[in-house]
Amino acid sequence: MTEAAHTLVLLRHGESEWNALNLFTGWVDVALSEKGRAEATAGGKMLVESGVLPDVVHTSVLRRAITTAFLALDAADRHWIDVKRSWRLNERHYGALQGKDKKQTLAEFGEEQFMLWRRSYDTPPPPIELGSEFSQDGDPRYAGLGADAPRTECLADVVARMLPYWTEEVVPDLRAGRTVLLAAHGNSLRALVKHLDGISDTDIAGLNIPTGIPLVYRLDADLKPLVPGGEYLDPAAAAAAAAAVANQGR
Amino acid sequence: MTEAAHTLVLLRHGESEWNALNLFTGWVDVALSEKGRAEATAGGKMLVESGVLPDVVHTSVLRRAITTAFLALDAADRHWIDVKRSWRLNERHYGALQGKDKKQTLAEFGEEQFMLWRRSYDTPPPPIELGSEFSQDGDPRYAGLGADAPRTECLADVVARMLPYWTEEVVPDLRAGRTVLLAAHGNSLRALVKHLDGISDTDIAGLNIPTGIPLVYRLDADLKPLVPGGEYLDPAAAAAAAAAVANQGR
Repeated sequence: MTEAAHTLVLLRHGESEWNALNLFTGWVDVALSEKGRAEATAGGKMLVESGVLPDVVHTSVLRRAITTAFLALDAADRHWIDVKRSWRLNERHYGALQGKDKKQTLAEFGEEQFMLWRRSYDTPPPPIELGSEFSQDGDPRYAGLGADAPRTECLADVVARMLPYWTEEVVPDLRAGRTVLLAAHGNSLRALVKHLDGISDTDIAGLNIPTGIPLVYRLDADLKPLVPGGEYLDPAAAAAAAAAVANQGR
Repeated sequence: MTEAAHTLVLLRHGESEWNALNLFTGWVDVALSEKGRAEATAGGKMLVESGVLPDVVHTSVLRRAITTAFLALDAADRHWIDVKRSWRLNERHYGALQGKDKKQTLAEFGEEQFMLWRRSYDTPPPPIELGSEFSQDGDPRYAGLGADAPRTECLADVVARMLPYWTEEVVPDLRAGRTVLLAAHGNSLRALVKHLDGISDTDIAGLNIPTGIPLVYRLDADLKPLVPGGEYLDPAAAAAAAAAVANQGR
């Protein structure tokens, strides 16, 4: 087997207060639930037990990913490593669906439309209205984006805004020999996994990433995964959790 | 009055588990106590109430400062700002006193020696023995320092290792127009305040910085404080707390 040149660890944030309420979240900056905090700490302990120790962490600019990284690294005794953050690692912007109940949305728009918004590669929900309750216009962390700040996104949009960050900020850390922890969200991580594993626009619909379980990619010198799909540090829990995610909104 | 060109906020970490036990801590990486966590959150709320909103945070590589920064920024809704860390912002290395009880040390060595170690500018405690329980040799976060890693420090040593970080990493952020939060320790902050306010080697002995209360320095274009000593966001609490710090070990 080729020897691993680089180690990348993906960590999806634990349960948020809105995951628990079954609301579409997107860029709304909700906190982790108590369960989500426990998941993050458990993820950090898995890092220690497996001897996978990050040298640098990259997070989105959303509280649930930032808190997950803090709690996991604190549990792993790696709280002191370098930190980098970017909106490019944010969850998909859910447009006008942000703040809406998933079950109500399913009932209101029907199964076909609901699944198109949730799982199609290139159909974004309607854009969110500027100035509305769950819009991020005026949020200082996005001031630099100006008129380019998204008001809705499909997964293709997430891939397009995430990849430049991967290339310009994450890859240089890997090439410098650093083990990278990337603490982010269901869809920004799906976008990255799609790229790493060369998954098609169609097949990515079926891929779910469970919360709180570190997913380790050993990459060769060309940044190709030695094991397609990477390796979860708790494979049994990952399989069970992925099935549960797929049933959200039911 | 000259207009402020730059805003710097100093925040000493809240009570740690060892502050509560009255042990010398130094570079030993202890956690905040529950009281210390509450202090950090309260400090963050003071930032919001006063409208002093950091754009970037600098911390030491010690858990109690890192957790203080996390909790304060989370409470201030500024959890998403850039983060930089350095061992140069660490607490003074307390040498062979690390892990020792303050009262016992006072009884064992007497008032004069005790105060010399605690408050003299240039008398370090005896160096810590390599490989001993509270030594940091082998700690990966200091691997880059090699043989230069301190085994004890006096305040003059802290000034000498802190100032290059101030000049090379913090000042450029200030000159870029960013409000800087510096979350650190009693002695690394005393070292910085000594520099900012031009306090003599003798007079710095009498200066205590209370925990958990943001200390705001408005600086002119030459980085001189507009108000000598800066301004605490809760001046009454700061005065009371400074008096209590001065009585530690009694």
